[in-house]
Amino acid sequence: MLIVQKFGGSSVANAERIRNVAGIIAESFLYGHEVVVVLSAQGDTTDELLDKAAEINPAPSKRELDMLLATGEQQSIALMAMCLEGMGLPVVSLTGWQVGIHTDANYGTARIRRVDSERLRRELDKKRIVLVAGFQGVNKFDDYTTLGRGGSDTTAVALAAALHADKCQIFTDVEGVYTADPRKVPAARKLEEITYDEMLELASMGAQVLMNRSVQLAKRYGVELEVLSSLVRAPGTKVKEVSKNMEEMKITGIAKDEKVARVTVAQVADRPGSAFRVLNAVAKAGINVDMIIQANGRDETNDISFVVAESDADAAAKALQERQSALGFDHVSLDKDIAKVSVVGAGMMSSVGIASLVFEALNDEHINIQMINTSEVKISCVIDATSADRAVAAIHRKFFET
Amino acid sequence: MLIVQKFGGSSVANAERIRNVAGIIAESFLYGHEVVVVLSAQGDTTDELLDKAAEINPAPSKRELDMLLATGEQQSIALMAMCLEGMGLPVVSLTGWQVGIHTDANYGTARIRRVDSERLRRELDKKRIVLVAGFQGVNKFDDYTTLGRGGSDTTAVALAAALHADKCQIFTDVEGVYTADPRKVPAARKLEEITYDEMLELASMGAQVLMNRSVQLAKRYGVELEVLSSLVRAPGTKVKEVSKNMEEMKITGIAKDEKVARVTVAQVADRPGSAFRVLNAVAKAGINVDMIIQANGRDETNDISFVVAESDADAAAKALQERQSALGFDHVSLDKDIAKVSVVGAGMMSSVGIASLVFEALNDEHINIQMINTSEVKISCVIDATSADRAVAAIHRKFFET
Repeated sequence: MLIVQKFGGSSVANAERIRNVAGIIAESFLYGHEVVVVLSAQGDTTDELLDKAAEINPAPSKRELDMLLATGEQQSIALMAMCLEGMGLPVVSLTGWQVGIHTDANYGTARIRRVDSERLRRELDKKRIVLVAGFQGVNKFDDYTTLGRGGSDTTAVALAAALHADKCQIFTDVEGVYTADPRKVPAARKLEEITYDEMLELASMGAQVLMNRSVQLAKRYGVELEVLSSLVRAPGTKVKEVSKNMEEMKITGIAKDEKVARVTVAQVADRPGSAFRVLNAVAKAGINVDMIIQANGRDETNDISFVVAESDADAAAKALQERQSALGFDHVSLDKDIAKVSVVGAGMMSSVGIASLVFEALNDEHINIQMINTSEVKISCVIDATSADRAVAAIHRKFFET
Repeated sequence: MLIVQKFGGSSVANAERIRNVAGIIAESFLYGHEVVVVLSAQGDTTDELLDKAAEINPAPSKRELDMLLATGEQQSIALMAMCLEGMGLPVVSLTGWQVGIHTDANYGTARIRRVDSERLRRELDKKRIVLVAGFQGVNKFDDYTTLGRGGSDTTAVALAAALHADKCQIFTDVEGVYTADPRKVPAARKLEEITYDEMLELASMGAQVLMNRSVQLAKRYGVELEVLSSLVRAPGTKVKEVSKNMEEMKITGIAKDEKVARVTVAQVADRPGSAFRVLNAVAKAGINVDMIIQANGRDETNDISFVVAESDADAAAKALQERQSALGFDHVSLDKDIAKVSVVGAGMMSSVGIASLVFEALNDEHINIQMINTSEVKISCVIDATSADRAVAAIHRKFFET
């Protein structure tokens, strides 16, 4: 079996953790599997490098930042290789360009275009464990690029796809995907399986287990993922096209995202296309918008509200204010003290009454719902940020604890 | 004019030093020169990485060690690029493989085979300052290699040769090449010019200014070197084929090397070829030997003494002892408390009485000479280590202060 394993920064933060991970890798290899391992930079390395850069230039080019950051993963693979060598195992480490991970030229947020598999295949044929630096690639100019947040997960899935791996294991500091955040909801259950679509909804809703990009890539290439802990030896959660629980389980999990803000554009003139023009102004600033609602005003105007990532809120307001006269509205207001609570489940579409159970749970707790959005696999509610944990617990009780 | 500038680790140890060096680079660039800059890893980075490695595996493979160490220089060039960007200057950083610095496969001590100049030329044609990671290259397997001690100097000279640079400036923490170590001999004079051969002798004799490899490379390709300070803006010492001072100055400088040891092989049977066999046994262990003397014993045996680097002394003794019966000697003894003091000067060969002045200086100080070696450009004396500084001062007085 060919397995791709990915370990994040906290899993390789120091010599002790590196030895622990080496044990997991060794076990798979000695079991007879072909093993390709993707590693992130150690612990806080990336942040330390960013601090160093900021001391020298608060706004460095993204090209040079990628040149700097790419060293973190390179150090991780070299140190892990040394650890496995010390255990007497055959191993070789490879950086992004050595593997041939070709990306576009968007430094800092590059997307993988193509992965060469020749060198990987050659090293595997030599019966070596292959360690690959995550998060990095090269563009057509032979310059270093990095893949942005969650980039190492993406590297792992891309390698699994290129090598037609049997599975791709993402080792993290949690034991799998849960019905809710187990630190907040003690009764939360670990899911044995989950579909790509459910995982995508959970990920985009703030469940910090896997980044959307890597799940999308896994879905596109049919790479079976497993999310599991590098510290606790236990089966994790499998992410695949069809979950065997799909029919019996109506909802899969509950996620909370507090890093959102509501933007309200007040008294937009009620003319054809005015909502489009407002949203277009935000989109042109490169900001994703979610959960749009339009409320009829008393006069010939409407209020348009939508949700953006909290980090984009000020930029969204600025983009709108710059075009205030052209768009024709009174003012823009921001509310950053909100949270989005989402209930996700592929079984939802075939079930009735899911939404009403969610509303009932929130009503029982006297939590006011400000905005609602539903799709075939998700119901999201915007509520006051201070009520978020209580809302997740209440919904969890309603669906999983009765 | 095309200038290659090299800055060592202490010159880029922190943000302040980086800014200082950026000023030097900017000055050359704004003066209208094409500038290629070679950087070492910051301050203690290499040692810190070695410590990290040792914690995980006391004897890692050299391949993985090179993978690890190569990150240090990559960080330096990225940070320097950011600093120059902050000054509004056009700049690009390149690692060893990006430039195309091709080496042999001797990890840790690789030798440069070929330097591609296309990418460098292309970047220079775009009117950019080009920063290159020193100390590193790639072998034919596309694996990272490092060049060993003084590797960044070698990188700088190799780039200067490949680009037919007009000069190659090696910035260090000293102001140039002196007639003796100025920290020990206050009257030491900075030399304006020195020949490659003189520099080679001084370097191999322990003057820690330039490594021999880079001087040899500069001599072979006729690259004019200048050694100068990154902290004090003053002309340094030029190293070239013919020094204008050659005729008038009999000797160039005095160097001391305390990292040597004397190996004595006692009572070697006086048979044809026995000295050869003794020295061959040491050479086969990969150890360089210097200043061989053979003393006739009372019986049918000789004592053979020679000088090796202190770090090689134990290995030399071991290599001999393993072949004791075949070589036919009584025992091996080591003396690590010695120093080699050398007087270097291309003008020496045309002058008489240099040697006698050296002996006179040492005699005046009652310093016993244990071994002597002379060549056309050098006289070396092995003396007691505790007398070394006094010997250098005495010789300096004799030649430079009267």
